[in-house]
Amino acid sequence: MNLNEKYKQVRLETVSFCNHLEIEDYAIQVVQFASPPKWHLAHTTWFFETFILKKYSENYTEFNSNFNFLFNSYYNNVGERILQNNRGNMSRPSINKIFEYRKYVDAKMEALLTHTSSKEIIDLVVLGLNHEQQHQELLITDVKYMLGHNPILPQLNANFNLVKDKNTTNQSVKINAGVYSIGYQENGFCYDNELGVHKVYVNDFEINNHLVTNGDFIAFIEDGGYTNFNLWLDQGWAWVNTNNINSPMYWHKINHEWHSYTLAGLQKVDVNAILCHINYYEANAFAEWKGMRLPTEFEWEIAAKQLDWGKRWEWTNSAYLPYPEFIKENGAVGEYNGKFMSNKMVLRGASVATSNNHSRLTYRNFFDPNKRWQFTGIRLAK
Amino acid sequence: MNLNEKYKQVRLETVSFCNHLEIEDYAIQVVQFASPPKWHLAHTTWFFETFILKKYSENYTEFNSNFNFLFNSYYNNVGERILQNNRGNMSRPSINKIFEYRKYVDAKMEALLTHTSSKEIIDLVVLGLNHEQQHQELLITDVKYMLGHNPILPQLNANFNLVKDKNTTNQSVKINAGVYSIGYQENGFCYDNELGVHKVYVNDFEINNHLVTNGDFIAFIEDGGYTNFNLWLDQGWAWVNTNNINSPMYWHKINHEWHSYTLAGLQKVDVNAILCHINYYEANAFAEWKGMRLPTEFEWEIAAKQLDWGKRWEWTNSAYLPYPEFIKENGAVGEYNGKFMSNKMVLRGASVATSNNHSRLTYRNFFDPNKRWQFTGIRLAK
Amino acid sequence: MNLNEKYKQVRLETVSFCNHLEIEDYAIQVVQFASPPKWHLAHTTWFFETFILKKYSENYTEFNSNFNFLFNSYYNNVGERILQNNRGNMSRPSINKIFEYRKYVDAKMEALLTHTSSKEIIDLVVLGLNHEQQHQELLITDVKYMLGHNPILPQLNANFNLVKDKNTTNQSVKINAGVYSIGYQENGFCYDNELGVHKVYVNDFEINNHLVTNGDFIAFIEDGGYTNFNLWLDQGWAWVNTNNINSPMYWHKINHEWHSYTLAGLQKVDVNAILCHINYYEANAFAEWKGMRLPTEFEWEIAAKQLDWGKRWEWTNSAYLPYPEFIKENGAVGEYNGKFMSNKMVLRGASVATSNNHSRLTYRNFFDPNKRWQFTGIRLAK
Amino acid sequence: MNLNEKYKQVRLETVSFCNHLEIEDYAIQVVQFASPPKWHLAHTTWFFETFILKKYSENYTEFNSNFNFLFNSYYNNVGERILQNNRGNMSRPSINKIFEYRKYVDAKMEALLTHTSSKEIIDLVVLGLNHEQQHQELLITDVKYMLGHNPILPQLNANFNLVKDKNTTNQSVKINAGVYSIGYQENGFCYDNELGVHKVYVNDFEINNHLVTNGDFIAFIEDGGYTNFNLWLDQGWAWVNTNNINSPMYWHKINHEWHSYTLAGLQKVDVNAILCHINYYEANAFAEWKGMRLPTEFEWEIAAKQLDWGKRWEWTNSAYLPYPEFIKENGAVGEYNGKFMSNKMVLRGASVATSNNHSRLTYRNFFDPNKRWQFTGIRLAK
Repeated sequence: MNLNEKYKQVRLETVSFCNHLEIEDYAIQVVQFASPPKWHLAHTTWFFETFILKKYSENYTEFNSNFNFLFNSYYNNVGERILQNNRGNMSRPSINKIFEYRKYVDAKMEALLTHTSSKEIIDLVVLGLNHEQQHQELLITDVKYMLGHNPILPQLNANFNLVKDKNTTNQSVKINAGVYSIGYQENGFCYDNELGVHKVYVNDFEINNHLVTNGDFIAFIEDGGYTNFNLWLDQGWAWVNTNNINSPMYWHKINHEWHSYTLAGLQKVDVNAILCHINYYEANAFAEWKGMRLPTEFEWEIAAKQLDWGKRWEWTNSAYLPYPEFIKENGAVGEYNGKFMSNKMVLRGASVATSNNHSRLTYRNFFDPNKRWQFTGIRLAK
Repeated sequence: MNLNEKYKQVRLETVSFCNHLEIEDYAIQVVQFASPPKWHLAHTTWFFETFILKKYSENYTEFNSNFNFLFNSYYNNVGERILQNNRGNMSRPSINKIFEYRKYVDAKMEALLTHTSSKEIIDLVVLGLNHEQQHQELLITDVKYMLGHNPILPQLNANFNLVKDKNTTNQSVKINAGVYSIGYQENGFCYDNELGVHKVYVNDFEINNHLVTNGDFIAFIEDGGYTNFNLWLDQGWAWVNTNNINSPMYWHKINHEWHSYTLAGLQKVDVNAILCHINYYEANAFAEWKGMRLPTEFEWEIAAKQLDWGKRWEWTNSAYLPYPEFIKENGAVGEYNGKFMSNKMVLRGASVATSNNHSRLTYRNFFDPNKRWQFTGIRLAK
Repeated sequence: MNLNEKYKQVRLETVSFCNHLEIEDYAIQVVQFASPPKWHLAHTTWFFETFILKKYSENYTEFNSNFNFLFNSYYNNVGERILQNNRGNMSRPSINKIFEYRKYVDAKMEALLTHTSSKEIIDLVVLGLNHEQQHQELLITDVKYMLGHNPILPQLNANFNLVKDKNTTNQSVKINAGVYSIGYQENGFCYDNELGVHKVYVNDFEINNHLVTNGDFIAFIEDGGYTNFNLWLDQGWAWVNTNNINSPMYWHKINHEWHSYTLAGLQKVDVNAILCHINYYEANAFAEWKGMRLPTEFEWEIAAKQLDWGKRWEWTNSAYLPYPEFIKENGAVGEYNGKFMSNKMVLRGASVATSNNHSRLTYRNFFDPNKRWQFTGIRLAK
Repeated sequence: MNLNEKYKQVRLETVSFCNHLEIEDYAIQVVQFASPPKWHLAHTTWFFETFILKKYSENYTEFNSNFNFLFNSYYNNVGERILQNNRGNMSRPSINKIFEYRKYVDAKMEALLTHTSSKEIIDLVVLGLNHEQQHQELLITDVKYMLGHNPILPQLNANFNLVKDKNTTNQSVKINAGVYSIGYQENGFCYDNELGVHKVYVNDFEINNHLVTNGDFIAFIEDGGYTNFNLWLDQGWAWVNTNNINSPMYWHKINHEWHSYTLAGLQKVDVNAILCHINYYEANAFAEWKGMRLPTEFEWEIAAKQLDWGKRWEWTNSAYLPYPEFIKENGAVGEYNGKFMSNKMVLRGASVATSNNHSRLTYRNFFDPNKRWQFTGIRLAK
């Protein structure tokens, strides 16, 4: 598949998820970290317009001069922008206008891609498509957050459960102590934060080839896991108490049975399915309760080829920090990853909501330790 | 016009304003006190369903059992409800569902009204229609708030300026000291807070038969009105400084000229038009600057027959408190007015956004002293 | 007693209450509205220094140039000042320094008073002494707040119960409808907010000559007063629920019996003693429960000569607003009262903590409707 | 020196710093993270009472049963406690009472230490003394915070500048890539977080043997360091803007010259002295500006023997996380370190405010990345 076809395919995938939405669903922002679908659709388009068309497409006319302000996410190098918190306050431009914007930019992009062989442009397009795939996952997680916090718990689509998958093995993998190489070593696309192949020393370790299930976690709950402070990090314990947490996100106890909200509506929790929607504090407390621990991101990467993975973003016990030879790019693109390297934990793997072919063994995802609206899970090590 | 026709007319007026909205406009809540149009459309319908159909319409089947939770505004007697702050978080039920709800309830109401002659029902219907008219005005003010806080300042409709009206006279009215009667004395509809005709004594006073204009207020601004603490109440001065206020709501200074956002888009401020969108603190500071004062609500009512009014809700210097013989009704309807009698100021008159035939000489409107998204204005007295 | 003697007496009274304090008690601020004793001692001194000595005492040398910033309360006309919230963050100047300040200013004041016959100065001194008496009461209420919120509930002094007084009568007073004069009509000192004698018309009313007792209020509590929303103003109900209120301030239920913190330590609540430490919302809800109401400040003043009063500050149902002929003085002294005329309710009477000879029939005290750390009580009318 | 002598010495050092305090200084808490001196004095005493005397001293009578609630810091295993934020609200118990408490506990401890040879007790005493030394440093930093935020910037003692020390060398140290051992390997006291000797692989690196000076940092400021977003982590940039930061803590620009508050009062910033009171974000931005980076805690430990250190707590680029073989102790003592392992960065070294003999090459200090009231500094690596 050439790049133009790839471009069309990725752009189409974004829109096809949206076919299930009502128009009002596009506009609403329930919480700061979950943006409205309309914003995702426009922001991914703005990325191509700003970083490619404005620079490389001759005589390019900006679609709308207000959109830079509205749809810039966090690039200080590209100027002022609305506060993240206010993305849901804009009923206008309407979704129809945003679809026009997508068409306009797509036409210009496809024209550009037909002629260009510039590596600089091609690299930016590949980055833009990977960026769009990240937003495809955010679209799913953000829509789930919005509907899952609506008191009537509306179903998006009967086929969209997404969290019913199970482990295929019950084994673990043993790795010997030694020096290993970490970081992306191939020739394809990767993010800057994966670069700089470097050595790390790890002790002997053993890592599960299966993820924690709902049944495992119910045992933790029933054993008083959410009320035993000795299991928790100090900030985790504060989070539990401030928010009166007693179960994973989207869980509801109805007539003594656990149910969870899925995009297919409210459903009974399947004890054999893989646990989802817990944060780092919960993952850490669960591991503590089990007498085990979370793997570091290095252990994870070393063992990854022998693991079954791709169902949940798996919390590691590694803080998101630069690799020894990390180099930040100049300008706006340099803001993509590096500036978030404080107070975040690394997640490895990929989830059922991740776009096809988007993840890698060396992929470093990262979120705040208290967030749980992503499709996150727990893999234990010792 | 009989009550059935009146019912149809009022209900239709609500919807006809909405014809100018995009679907996304229905769903969004920018600030706690400005509800989404969808909510207004459903809540006014819920009022008829809850207080009339459920009680008086035989075999009535509730449209949707979730709606009581979603569309109850503040009636503790009618059960639990979502927080006011969360009204804009509900993308579902969609606006189409709400229009179905309106049709469903309207059909039942019209059937009921065809047969009934019960005074109890008729009184509640009249209350419901007055209630709906209040929400018609809120619809306008809340949509203006939403669009007026959108950075692209979208036009709703080119004919919807609403704030360009002018004074027709430059005179004032003099009233002699004495005992006067206050309160509603006629036979039509009025709210409970207007009842209990009672006497008050007032001193000699003089009250302007014109309202403060934009030009008057620009003079105040240019004389440093917003920076001279001696003009302000303590809480007003805190409000100015906390929010960096230097002009009425919706005003923007562009190239040294004042513009204001109207529903017809951004327009130059007409110095001869009547000032709009100021709060009690601003009204009070302006009066102080002029060496005059705001009238009390009693002075206003005594003079009202001789005044030109109906263009702005006029801040008075009266706190919203019960009349001496105020009687709260039992049950939910008793929550309509009485429970708001603390920390609010009375506004008299009516505005360009008020529904026809909705106001009266004795009408007591009330808002927090720091709010200014209503079509408020200033009349001076001394 | 001449003014110099009066000056010495009032200044001494302030200090004599402080004899019961530990040095640490002087410095701490537990909540924004309750200032540290050290601050009161300095601020009252600053008042004389700023408004009298700096203007009228020849060659007066300021005690310390930082003190204007530290001990100005709210006079914008006298320059910048620390935030009210930060008054308790200043361990220095130490209390010894503040007592030096008092001595220094007292010596200068006494010298000035020995020679002067200027009415301007004498009026300011009288104002300063009344101001100091207000702070004497605040000293008591603020110290009670600080110690009453200390988990070990320390006793200040075994003789300082202050809230054990009882009603001396069980009667009520009837007043006929008519026009009455309101406002201060004598020749002594009064605040500007009492001036401007004016007429008001009142209906027939009856007012209790006794205050609500602890026993009365326990009946309200036991009848579910704090959980019945129909009794409460909307803002009061929000206050109850946000703060989980179920009794007056300082009450604790221990082994099924109500106790209350007093400055003499924790004591059993005496059902025959007069209720204390409730706010306007509680007063209003109690009246509603009784099927009665609070008097207006005009009713109170009209009946006052026939009433027993002086034990509690009694909540009225009048908002604190200017009298018809209220005139604000120029400059800083004009900030004394007028600028607080929004969102406050009037209290009439005086409390067991009020300084001798400080109150009057026409005295208008005022507090936020949600505050209850003053010695407040309830008198009912109908 | 035997343990009893060591005990007396450490306990005395705590008190001797306090000789410079006014009584009010003991009681006040200006900000949540800086506790009042009185609290430090009592809490360190409570540590010995709770973990040693109550368990091992026969017939021990608790000094005061309220003190467990008041002076427990964060040990959930030891029961309920006051909120950290409220430590400054307690004027009582007075400081005299706290000194009595210290004497009482010291007498019992000294009696116990005279007889005991139990390793369990001795280990706890050593832990208690190390704990007290940590609070000795906090006493200094917290008093500096309190006085440094007092608008009159009082001097504690003319000899207490503390931040005027300079580098003794201008060199750097080069270390070859390889596997190194990390963690405490000797026989003395160390914290649990230093244990579990383990190997790490590091690349070639070079680390400065001098710390960043005030002059270096002024160059950063003058080059627009605080306004160039490209130098900052995202959370650091938010911190700068939210708090309007433009210099290290305690710096004031007066007549175009930088001054800083020291415990000896306000003094001119010496450009040759070592920079102090910056947080991780500032350290990171400065390194970015220099084209260098912060060392990891492993690099620091590997190079430490060749470095001059002990003047500042040096920010590393390592998150505070458990070593591979970290074992949390059971019960309350297990809460000492492990539960804080999220969202904190490691600092290595020791500062001019650290007690003698308190630090080690392997010592892992940790603070929130936005805090700067400790005596922190910057060492660069590449």
